Amino acid sequence: MTSDSNNLIVTLSGPNQPGIVHAITGALLRVNADIAESKQFDSPHSGTFFMRVQFSTDCSVQDTQTAIADVVEQYDMDAEVYDAAVKTRTLIMVSKDGRTMNELLFQQHAGTLPVEVPVIVSNHLDLQPMAYFYDVPFVHIPLIKHADGTDNKAEAEARLMQIIDQYDIELVVLARYMQILSDELTRKLDGKAINIHHSFLPSFKGARPYHQAHDRGVKLIGATAHYVTADLDEGPIIEQRVQRVNHALTAQDFVQRGRAVEGATLAQAVQWHTEHRVLLDGDRTVIFE
Amino acid sequence: MTSDSNNLIVTLSGPNQPGIVHAITGALLRVNADIAESKQFDSPHSGTFFMRVQFSTDCSVQDTQTAIADVVEQYDMDAEVYDAAVKTRTLIMVSKDGRTMNELLFQQHAGTLPVEVPVIVSNHLDLQPMAYFYDVPFVHIPLIKHADGTDNKAEAEARLMQIIDQYDIELVVLARYMQILSDELTRKLDGKAINIHHSFLPSFKGARPYHQAHDRGVKLIGATAHYVTADLDEGPIIEQRVQRVNHALTAQDFVQRGRAVEGATLAQAVQWHTEHRVLLDGDRTVIFE
Amino acid sequence: MTSDSNNLIVTLSGPNQPGIVHAITGALLRVNADIAESKQFDSPHSGTFFMRVQFSTDCSVQDTQTAIADVVEQYDMDAEVYDAAVKTRTLIMVSKDGRTMNELLFQQHAGTLPVEVPVIVSNHLDLQPMAYFYDVPFVHIPLIKHADGTDNKAEAEARLMQIIDQYDIELVVLARYMQILSDELTRKLDGKAINIHHSFLPSFKGARPYHQAHDRGVKLIGATAHYVTADLDEGPIIEQRVQRVNHALTAQDFVQRGRAVEGATLAQAVQWHTEHRVLLDGDRTVIFE
Amino acid sequence: MTSDSNNLIVTLSGPNQPGIVHAITGALLRVNADIAESKQFDSPHSGTFFMRVQFSTDCSVQDTQTAIADVVEQYDMDAEVYDAAVKTRTLIMVSKDGRTMNELLFQQHAGTLPVEVPVIVSNHLDLQPMAYFYDVPFVHIPLIKHADGTDNKAEAEARLMQIIDQYDIELVVLARYMQILSDELTRKLDGKAINIHHSFLPSFKGARPYHQAHDRGVKLIGATAHYVTADLDEGPIIEQRVQRVNHALTAQDFVQRGRAVEGATLAQAVQWHTEHRVLLDGDRTVIFE
Repeated sequence: MTSDSNNLIVTLSGPNQPGIVHAITGALLRVNADIAESKQFDSPHSGTFFMRVQFSTDCSVQDTQTAIADVVEQYDMDAEVYDAAVKTRTLIMVSKDGRTMNELLFQQHAGTLPVEVPVIVSNHLDLQPMAYFYDVPFVHIPLIKHADGTDNKAEAEARLMQIIDQYDIELVVLARYMQILSDELTRKLDGKAINIHHSFLPSFKGARPYHQAHDRGVKLIGATAHYVTADLDEGPIIEQRVQRVNHALTAQDFVQRGRAVEGATLAQAVQWHTEHRVLLDGDRTVIFE
Repeated sequence: MTSDSNNLIVTLSGPNQPGIVHAITGALLRVNADIAESKQFDSPHSGTFFMRVQFSTDCSVQDTQTAIADVVEQYDMDAEVYDAAVKTRTLIMVSKDGRTMNELLFQQHAGTLPVEVPVIVSNHLDLQPMAYFYDVPFVHIPLIKHADGTDNKAEAEARLMQIIDQYDIELVVLARYMQILSDELTRKLDGKAINIHHSFLPSFKGARPYHQAHDRGVKLIGATAHYVTADLDEGPIIEQRVQRVNHALTAQDFVQRGRAVEGATLAQAVQWHTEHRVLLDGDRTVIFE
Repeated sequence: MTSDSNNLIVTLSGPNQPGIVHAITGALLRVNADIAESKQFDSPHSGTFFMRVQFSTDCSVQDTQTAIADVVEQYDMDAEVYDAAVKTRTLIMVSKDGRTMNELLFQQHAGTLPVEVPVIVSNHLDLQPMAYFYDVPFVHIPLIKHADGTDNKAEAEARLMQIIDQYDIELVVLARYMQILSDELTRKLDGKAINIHHSFLPSFKGARPYHQAHDRGVKLIGATAHYVTADLDEGPIIEQRVQRVNHALTAQDFVQRGRAVEGATLAQAVQWHTEHRVLLDGDRTVIFE
Repeated sequence: MTSDSNNLIVTLSGPNQPGIVHAITGALLRVNADIAESKQFDSPHSGTFFMRVQFSTDCSVQDTQTAIADVVEQYDMDAEVYDAAVKTRTLIMVSKDGRTMNELLFQQHAGTLPVEVPVIVSNHLDLQPMAYFYDVPFVHIPLIKHADGTDNKAEAEARLMQIIDQYDIELVVLARYMQILSDELTRKLDGKAINIHHSFLPSFKGARPYHQAHDRGVKLIGATAHYVTADLDEGPIIEQRVQRVNHALTAQDFVQRGRAVEGATLAQAVQWHTEHRVLLDGDRTVIFE
């Protein structure tokens, strides 16, 4: 055990069984956990038990893992122990529009978003100056279509994967990165990549969705932040927000207002993820706000 | 001309042309219109001019129609003149769930929704007591499937049409009336029937949409009030609202919260319609709030 | 122990100490509690521990009280055990405006608000028909100012208190009851009476607040549902909501929109209270939504 | 007349009189105005007529002023003619917190906020790097309290006034500039300075308002953007927004969420002002969104 006080977070999930909370809290007593916040949810949907406990202790992450190991095994749970002081190493991917990245970097810089951003990747150069302003290395991975119809997509993904490894990236945030990731990469990043997507009532498929929504005269435009899965724009939803619009606004106004909602929605989703408040219940999320 | 002061509303739409507002306001001077509220919108989308003017005058609706007739013809406009004191004769159609009808009837009774409800039609008897509490005749038109596979849908619609004529109905509000109207009836009610529809991000097709939304773990549920068209749930949108939900709520909780949003959304749409604030711009609405 | 399965709720609060959750969940194992929902919060503000546990068990409320008694005493906690199937006996008090009462009674009738309303009290007769429609006894306690300057306030409160006792009232909801309760009555109803109050940014003191807000040109109007304390309109806040307004609306429109927000806000506060989701942390509330 | 097409905006206000719209639109015909958007409001509150017309014309601002001069005089109106392509010259004043300035500068840079920011003034140096990133000169005017109890406030304001003149400033935005302006400066900037202010239900006076709101357990925090008047935090309200909070958030979390709302609220107010959509009706604003 260390002599310093640590602020730790434990997340747990597994089949719901009687006695599970008693067993966990008993195990946490062994590391003298002084519980600050504890939330539990039993999904009637899936029969799964979810728990998040935040506590101070003079023990380490590893001590805590050891202390709860028996209970975790006995109840067949997935368990993670995090040090709340350790910021999630986050790769931001962007294309040309900087609204969302600006929101993330400002909040990170101001200390209100607990992430560390060691590198930014983009298929364009437009946002390099903003990356440099925030002292973040910027890697340009252009996507090239060759005259013979082939492209460099495979190489680009390989380069991206190399960067993820090189910088020990724990979370990939697609801050309006306007390219589809391969199935292989998507699977590799399962539960570790968050995308932001416009959302409308009703929804629109295909190109230029804000223009479709404008043609349809919607009164609300919104955004959905979700985990990336192979099924594009269909992963588990983390956060959704909307903004009012009206008939007098142009499609371009819709885009502008939509970007603001997208930025705020994504920043909230990233914050909850990095505070380890999001647990997966199949295709759904449990958010311990 | 009458000697009393009238509170009139004129709505106009037509191809946008220079001088149109000057011409209209000139015509309105002839009836000594004291303009209280005037809103105009030129749709870049369709090139159509829209205007709504509310004013007091000592002239009648007919005097006003005569006064503006030349301008209306010259500029090839659709024009309507309404007496703001005359309430829209509104038929409410319901099935079993009374949340939305309760909202409409309470507001009508309290004088905050300017409609007159001379009759309520339902395919079930559940809401008869509430109709009677508000002193509104209740007509039960059951939908029957016969043993030989035929049904009484045609007769039911004929009966409905008869009621619409008999009561001089100007607006039909489908307050969770869970039946599809025929194409013929839909066309006949074009721009005169408002439906309320649940709305989700993303949207869900098919049965039990609240349960689908729950399975998908959405964080917002909403409602869309729209004009009824032959293309079900796809008419011009009048109003949309949303309500937050979270993982701990059941599908049944979603339904309950959804009903509250549906009621408030529909009441707002009906209010704007009956105040003649909604103009049609193709598939879109212009709302002069 | 009974043989039926009960759905029980335990709420606990007391000085925060290590081991408290482990001790409680251990005690609950003794009644074979199958925990469905558990939430805990440690207030850094006051050093107080709060917990709400909902579970199914084949034991009774009394068995559960017995099972946790030792732990409750050891940790110096306030504890309550409720049967979730038992609806809170609620007295609704109104004056003339029925918007808020209509919301509560409709939801109660529809089964979405878990209250039982055995009686309604009013200082006016206006809402008697609505009470009767919902089959609720209506007691008229007029407030009379005599010619000699005296009034019947003391008798009226005595009558009110008698009704509270007679009907075993557990919660008093002031659904726009436009009279101030005496300090004595307020103290007696501490934590058992909920009021709804308009709310503005900034706030306005004195008469006709909606008109003051209108004069000031506010863009949002809102409502606050709070526990009643001797300090009028200043008790612990349970829920707050707002609605947009604009310059074109009259003060009367403000009132109308305000009433809708007040109704929805109060209904939400009553629901949380009756589901035992509201715990008091000094002047603040902890809401285990 | 010039041969180019101009996009002009006319705003008008004055005592409401019959024929006023007809007269104005007649005058605008003389400059061949093709009206794109026109909004009018007659304040029953003050008896004042307000109008905003946006139109394209081949005439200049000065031609238009000449064309409407007679009507403006006849109806005793205040009238302004603006070229929509000319961006408002805006001075941003800040202290240490950059959240709000970041929002304004990003939107200005992205072209979604039609302002030109020729200079930023601050009493601290913290935000100089961000100003430089956006290529905006940064003037540091420290406020100094001397040992003898005197301060440099008068000199600082003189320096500020000199900058306002030097840069032809048309709008001053106090983006969390944490100093009170003198009465003299406030009068001079009447209708030309916008402040952002936290807002709570109920409101709190005095120091550390977010902490007071936290102590009180509010469920909503908000922001008000308003014109600066001598009566601090009491000028005409342009925009108000709110954000939900809950018991689990710290006072510091309140501050963080409050800053985000403040930034969005101020940016919206500045946008409406610079699009000449805000007209003053005594202490109230008319917003022609």
